[in-house]
Amino acid sequence: MSPQVVTLGEAMLRLSAPAGERLEAVESLDVHVAGAEANVAAALASLGVPVAWVSALPDLPLGRRVARALRGAGVDVGFVEWVDQGRIGLFFIEFGATPRPTAVWYDRQTSAFSQMSEFDPTVLDEARFAVSSGVTMALGDGPRRLAESFIGAARERGVSVCLDVNYRERLWAPSAARRVLEPMLGQAKIIVCSRRDAERVFGVDDAEGAEAAALELRERFAPEAAALVLTDGASGCVGISGSSVFVQAAPTARVVDRIGAGDAFVAGLLWGMLSDVGLGESLRYATALGALACTVRGDQALFTPAEIRAAATETVAMIR
Amino acid sequence: MSPQVVTLGEAMLRLSAPAGERLEAVESLDVHVAGAEANVAAALASLGVPVAWVSALPDLPLGRRVARALRGAGVDVGFVEWVDQGRIGLFFIEFGATPRPTAVWYDRQTSAFSQMSEFDPTVLDEARFAVSSGVTMALGDGPRRLAESFIGAARERGVSVCLDVNYRERLWAPSAARRVLEPMLGQAKIIVCSRRDAERVFGVDDAEGAEAAALELRERFAPEAAALVLTDGASGCVGISGSSVFVQAAPTARVVDRIGAGDAFVAGLLWGMLSDVGLGESLRYATALGALACTVRGDQALFTPAEIRAAATETVAMIR
Amino acid sequence: MSPQVVTLGEAMLRLSAPAGERLEAVESLDVHVAGAEANVAAALASLGVPVAWVSALPDLPLGRRVARALRGAGVDVGFVEWVDQGRIGLFFIEFGATPRPTAVWYDRQTSAFSQMSEFDPTVLDEARFAVSSGVTMALGDGPRRLAESFIGAARERGVSVCLDVNYRERLWAPSAARRVLEPMLGQAKIIVCSRRDAERVFGVDDAEGAEAAALELRERFAPEAAALVLTDGASGCVGISGSSVFVQAAPTARVVDRIGAGDAFVAGLLWGMLSDVGLGESLRYATALGALACTVRGDQALFTPAEIRAAATETVAMIR
Amino acid sequence: MSPQVVTLGEAMLRLSAPAGERLEAVESLDVHVAGAEANVAAALASLGVPVAWVSALPDLPLGRRVARALRGAGVDVGFVEWVDQGRIGLFFIEFGATPRPTAVWYDRQTSAFSQMSEFDPTVLDEARFAVSSGVTMALGDGPRRLAESFIGAARERGVSVCLDVNYRERLWAPSAARRVLEPMLGQAKIIVCSRRDAERVFGVDDAEGAEAAALELRERFAPEAAALVLTDGASGCVGISGSSVFVQAAPTARVVDRIGAGDAFVAGLLWGMLSDVGLGESLRYATALGALACTVRGDQALFTPAEIRAAATETVAMIR
Amino acid sequence: MSPQVVTLGEAMLRLSAPAGERLEAVESLDVHVAGAEANVAAALASLGVPVAWVSALPDLPLGRRVARALRGAGVDVGFVEWVDQGRIGLFFIEFGATPRPTAVWYDRQTSAFSQMSEFDPTVLDEARFAVSSGVTMALGDGPRRLAESFIGAARERGVSVCLDVNYRERLWAPSAARRVLEPMLGQAKIIVCSRRDAERVFGVDDAEGAEAAALELRERFAPEAAALVLTDGASGCVGISGSSVFVQAAPTARVVDRIGAGDAFVAGLLWGMLSDVGLGESLRYATALGALACTVRGDQALFTPAEIRAAATETVAMIR
Amino acid sequence: MSPQVVTLGEAMLRLSAPAGERLEAVESLDVHVAGAEANVAAALASLGVPVAWVSALPDLPLGRRVARALRGAGVDVGFVEWVDQGRIGLFFIEFGATPRPTAVWYDRQTSAFSQMSEFDPTVLDEARFAVSSGVTMALGDGPRRLAESFIGAARERGVSVCLDVNYRERLWAPSAARRVLEPMLGQAKIIVCSRRDAERVFGVDDAEGAEAAALELRERFAPEAAALVLTDGASGCVGISGSSVFVQAAPTARVVDRIGAGDAFVAGLLWGMLSDVGLGESLRYATALGALACTVRGDQALFTPAEIRAAATETVAMIR
Repeated sequence: MSPQVVTLGEAMLRLSAPAGERLEAVESLDVHVAGAEANVAAALASLGVPVAWVSALPDLPLGRRVARALRGAGVDVGFVEWVDQGRIGLFFIEFGATPRPTAVWYDRQTSAFSQMSEFDPTVLDEARFAVSSGVTMALGDGPRRLAESFIGAARERGVSVCLDVNYRERLWAPSAARRVLEPMLGQAKIIVCSRRDAERVFGVDDAEGAEAAALELRERFAPEAAALVLTDGASGCVGISGSSVFVQAAPTARVVDRIGAGDAFVAGLLWGMLSDVGLGESLRYATALGALACTVRGDQALFTPAEIRAAATETVAMIR
Repeated sequence: MSPQVVTLGEAMLRLSAPAGERLEAVESLDVHVAGAEANVAAALASLGVPVAWVSALPDLPLGRRVARALRGAGVDVGFVEWVDQGRIGLFFIEFGATPRPTAVWYDRQTSAFSQMSEFDPTVLDEARFAVSSGVTMALGDGPRRLAESFIGAARERGVSVCLDVNYRERLWAPSAARRVLEPMLGQAKIIVCSRRDAERVFGVDDAEGAEAAALELRERFAPEAAALVLTDGASGCVGISGSSVFVQAAPTARVVDRIGAGDAFVAGLLWGMLSDVGLGESLRYATALGALACTVRGDQALFTPAEIRAAATETVAMIR
Repeated sequence: MSPQVVTLGEAMLRLSAPAGERLEAVESLDVHVAGAEANVAAALASLGVPVAWVSALPDLPLGRRVARALRGAGVDVGFVEWVDQGRIGLFFIEFGATPRPTAVWYDRQTSAFSQMSEFDPTVLDEARFAVSSGVTMALGDGPRRLAESFIGAARERGVSVCLDVNYRERLWAPSAARRVLEPMLGQAKIIVCSRRDAERVFGVDDAEGAEAAALELRERFAPEAAALVLTDGASGCVGISGSSVFVQAAPTARVVDRIGAGDAFVAGLLWGMLSDVGLGESLRYATALGALACTVRGDQALFTPAEIRAAATETVAMIR
Repeated sequence: MSPQVVTLGEAMLRLSAPAGERLEAVESLDVHVAGAEANVAAALASLGVPVAWVSALPDLPLGRRVARALRGAGVDVGFVEWVDQGRIGLFFIEFGATPRPTAVWYDRQTSAFSQMSEFDPTVLDEARFAVSSGVTMALGDGPRRLAESFIGAARERGVSVCLDVNYRERLWAPSAARRVLEPMLGQAKIIVCSRRDAERVFGVDDAEGAEAAALELRERFAPEAAALVLTDGASGCVGISGSSVFVQAAPTARVVDRIGAGDAFVAGLLWGMLSDVGLGESLRYATALGALACTVRGDQALFTPAEIRAAATETVAMIR
Repeated sequence: MSPQVVTLGEAMLRLSAPAGERLEAVESLDVHVAGAEANVAAALASLGVPVAWVSALPDLPLGRRVARALRGAGVDVGFVEWVDQGRIGLFFIEFGATPRPTAVWYDRQTSAFSQMSEFDPTVLDEARFAVSSGVTMALGDGPRRLAESFIGAARERGVSVCLDVNYRERLWAPSAARRVLEPMLGQAKIIVCSRRDAERVFGVDDAEGAEAAALELRERFAPEAAALVLTDGASGCVGISGSSVFVQAAPTARVVDRIGAGDAFVAGLLWGMLSDVGLGESLRYATALGALACTVRGDQALFTPAEIRAAATETVAMIR
Repeated sequence: MSPQVVTLGEAMLRLSAPAGERLEAVESLDVHVAGAEANVAAALASLGVPVAWVSALPDLPLGRRVARALRGAGVDVGFVEWVDQGRIGLFFIEFGATPRPTAVWYDRQTSAFSQMSEFDPTVLDEARFAVSSGVTMALGDGPRRLAESFIGAARERGVSVCLDVNYRERLWAPSAARRVLEPMLGQAKIIVCSRRDAERVFGVDDAEGAEAAALELRERFAPEAAALVLTDGASGCVGISGSSVFVQAAPTARVVDRIGAGDAFVAGLLWGMLSDVGLGESLRYATALGALACTVRGDQALFTPAEIRAAATETVAMIR
């Protein structure tokens, strides 16, 4: 089946110490597959959406480890470039417990993806959404140019671009992020950004509340966006579509593993958009899948439509 | 030692995914022994009560797995029928975390127990209590008739019948349950029923509160019951004995694994009744053992008398 | 990609006690996906062959568990029928150590697959091989008729049928197996049969050695087979194609988990046949993949072409 | 059921490092229940023999851990004395791999059993065999006197005493062992002794082979023994009964965990004797159960009659 | 490097059942190294302080297990006495969940340390602090005399003695503790005592609040103490130095494993004192490290200076 | 204590799939510390030799993980340089089973050590041996120059240089290795080289057997070596010292994990040399420790003097 959604980005192996254990004394590491755009793809595939993930992997067991997980979730990995050079990116996690924070260490330099320079644009031929995120732009000039070409190819075909700002302070400075991301926001139809990133990357004034910040972000950086969503972690989000503003609280979640929840949010949002239920309803799915993602170990949120619907809270969105 | 308590029902192997893992991606399953009446027997044996469990098991390793666990807890399994035909019943659990619910899938059809048609009534000769539950009645005509014959044999010997309504919507409809259970309630001396089952199975009006519901249940369906207890999950229970009404709050519990807590409640109740401490005090033990059961992995609540006493909250029961 | 190979059969969850542990005392069970034809499909997919697996699965987490594993290996599961009724078949393993045998207990009755009655024959449109095995025929009249219709559809399209005799004494008697399998052998182009099954099911005289037995099997039951292979466990196999006879020794293997090795053998054989390297060379791959399968836990032999080539022993086949 | 066999001795918790790990770096320890006479009891119970184990345990969770395991295997633990003082004996194991030997460290001083001074002799009223071993005599004056009183009570009731020499160099010197054990051998009807212990404890000349040594041992130390068996580890045993000599080879075994195999041997021997099949046949069961014990983790050999029969090699015993 | 801090006391192996499991059914035990003064040493070493631990260990794998862990944390174990006699002390833990309490069983009698009678006082030559605790005094006359001699040697060298009252009701009675500890408090410069121990051991009136109790404790028992800290579990502590009183709240902690938190508190306190930041600031580190200790499995709190600083709450201490 | 032995080289984290599992499907990875010269240091420290390891580590949890393990074994890590830049080197292992080979994938580029450029030569002031290996030279110009400067500093102080050729084909070509290593061999007093490396790197003719090859290697490349040892894997080694030739068979070993055995061999050799027992006796220890290393999981061979002596086979060395 031709993919309705295409995502572009790096996948890594995530190596985590068991909860309550410290990396500096660790005897075994749990292995999961992660990466913002791969997570979005896996979550959508699990919901039944035909989705392809465009990336590069080393032709080694650990590269196959990644492909097997994504393919198992239902993602089309036929557009992955298999390369002889380059590592698989890694990151290490030590799960925290207050007052000890959860800590992440990236080890993704010289990865196969970071050296990828082109892709087959026909993957986008039948798509409705092309998805990438700020993490990809942060990985260096190569990935950035690749993402630009991906966005360009999408626009040529009339495919809506969905961009998650996803700022990572370990990868680049706010000013660098803004310089790169600002023109991209202008080309995106769907934008997801956390309230905190809006402030530190784009200098949006947060003092007037999330709604005002969302409006400011759209007006200044993304006037063409059909939908702009400002997330606020566990508490919920604000979405703007045209002149409508939606406020959506998130379901309460008992957190097992929060990492990847933001990507699940994006997947839930897109699932709603693909179902043509409107932004308000889509935000319900976004917050529901984000909450569900917190309840399972691993980055990926593999849930069924029935599960996402059951977790979606009653619509409390105010519509203006 | 001759059993003071005899329970009749099916035991299954419970196969559960590790917490935080999903069944659809599971790599290993934890194995526990479960089954309402087997759980009651194990908890009572652990408290030092001579107790026998009447059932059927396939003469296979997994059947022996069940017998070994119960015998290890101290249950007399000498009245178990070992059969060549029939499976061991199974059920699968995925533990939830809000907003993802804990989910259970039964796989118990054509089990050895469901094909059992008779038992040796001499097991009841010296007993004080004969215990079964609505789950057993729900397993088909065979088990229902077996339970009826068990209750009949108990009454012939002057053994008090204890019945836990234990309605399971995956096994039968409320109307079917009522048709079968109503005459049985009339024969039971001790009845345990959840507030929710009282309403959905027996149509008891819950609007006036637990106490009124308990009274209505007894008056309409179990006028001869010496003790009727309406449970209300984690919050506590109401007990009625003659004209006395006892209200007992449950101890606060940090829940590790809630499954089997209701059976522990019944065991705690019977342990009190066997000690002749009266219904009010027995409810303290019931709620205490129910709470303790939530704190350990597995269905079975294997605690000592000292532990149950330490966990029993101060009596807050009001007596009328 | 259209499948080059299509396999039809049941997949089960295999639940095994850790090595050195007994099922009757087991505390956790390792979960793998298994099933003769699913194993063949997974091994071929791993080798890069486009392959589809035709079957039925319950639309439940454990059904999805099976699909996820096969899809992860690269198998096309788009022709699987998802049903609301029926269990997922199970089997339990206790791994032995001399003198304690490895033991298997099936628990597969009333499975979703056993109730499947039709399939979409277009899956075969572009295929070169249609694969099934005697296990499928043994599961009852429904599966047998389904397999007959599968073979019929293959023949209509000129797709070569590959049949692995795979006799299971726990499922049916030798005479019943012969009655069903004999006409099927007549329709198969590629037949794999163990020396032992040739004797006990088809009454082939084994006294004159494997080569004579293979010739007798072909002459009596499968005169049209393009290739007939008689396996002899860890020691190797004899293959007959036209008037050529090939004898192939198996590589020495240190056995971690022998179960599934026969299915890997079939996959290796077909991989060779698809590469058009001739039966002799194909037997080298068959024995190599069978040996490799013994070195990993689980039923499925997921190896790369480079790995199978490295493990293939020097050709020692004699050609007549 | 009244016990047919009664064993007396200490049970310990065995804490073992996972295979391939060293105790000095161990992160988790596997827990098993062990102890020569408890092992014999558990193996017999598993074979269906009514058997009681006489001992003392601390009334603490780890004491209950022991009782639960033995009761689970079917052993009657009603004659265990529960005490407030005294530890549970422990021993630690590091499993070896050539040239690194398996090593055992005892930590059993001041155990509850070592302070036990009396038992209820009525346990022997209906028994056929009373079993103890040299380990018990080695634990100090108290256990030795207890064992003497056990043997005396058995003889008063006409119960045959079975004694396994079971010399432990970590517990006492050969000369001390001989001084204590010599008079006991004179009272035993069934004696099991390893060839090596016969030489180092009793000074039996081994140069003429096992048969001569067995005869010498009986003539010098146990003229009244109805059966004397000299074991020779994995290779087999020699048994003497009256003027008959039986030589029995042991089945080949792939060793997972050899500890406890000697106790399984004794259990197999007694199971044969209880079945009145004669010493020769009993030795087949002894070597079979000893071999089976090596194939499972843990000290205890919990097998069914069908399993022991399947593992018993063809009788190769020579009868004189 | 010469140690700046020297601690004296016993280390044990801590064997704990996995969370949610009961010791009486445990299949494996997690192994950690523990012991009040060893914990203090390990935490300080992890913070970069040169620290030696004075103790005795059996020259056996489990003794080496202890030394390896402490050495790995950076503790100088060159002053440990390796002995041929004596066990390694053990204790067993079952982690609780309300209403089931966490339970600890000691098994430390006849340990190598309890038989230790002298030490090399030159270890103290360059030290600033000599640390021991009431647990050590409670282990018998030998350990008590050893501790007295340790304190004496410290005072001779002008090394400040730090004493943690650390009363253990399983080891001795309050009156015995007071008799032994009272003269020791008079010699200590730094004293840590829980509010509860102040009351039950020293009879300090707690009714007037923590501050009054701390003052009373110092005035009556430790007039020379340069710093006296009264802890109040998770809520915080009160510290007195000269006429200054500091009140420090503890950071909120999500508790993974509370055992050892008190020792981490002492280490944090000493780390502050060694940094000459004053008692108020030191209490911030003490509560921070105590809280961090609760967030990891095991007794030992191995954190970096950066981590302790990040966890230290804002100073809320009031200074008088 | 001043180190008697100083080793220089990289340590890595070794991440291995559980035995029988494939990396491409791995769910958890076991973590060990490894690296040729770190392994030598750890083994010697475990034998009681004062030994320092000179290297660089990133100041991150995984860097501390390495230091903790080595310090725990007793290695002096005070000369390790802690750096802010650079990764911790990794390598991944999939353990094989015939015919599937054990496979290793390095992921060590841009490691902290590979960027290290100087060290504190005073570490060598009191040493007898300075140890490095060909792996270090293969890591690039920086490490090579560092090693040269290490060797130079050793020679200035009269410290004997010990060099293990340790050729790794994944790191460099034989010709490059020879160009770098040849001048170094000329400066080493103790040289260890495998028979295979002698041939492929140095072009030594192996046809005349190990003894002739050893002699040729010494004559051509290392005329000043006081001891040259040619190893031959599991079968043993040949050692040459002056005009004496020693042939030493290795003890039979049941292999749990062969990786690191060569480093253990070097440590055993040096332990003998430090004990001044002569080369012949030292080879016994070398082969013994090499064999013991195979019996435990992980790269490091942490054994006591008693254990190495027990494993050392009888001297079968021929002396000329």
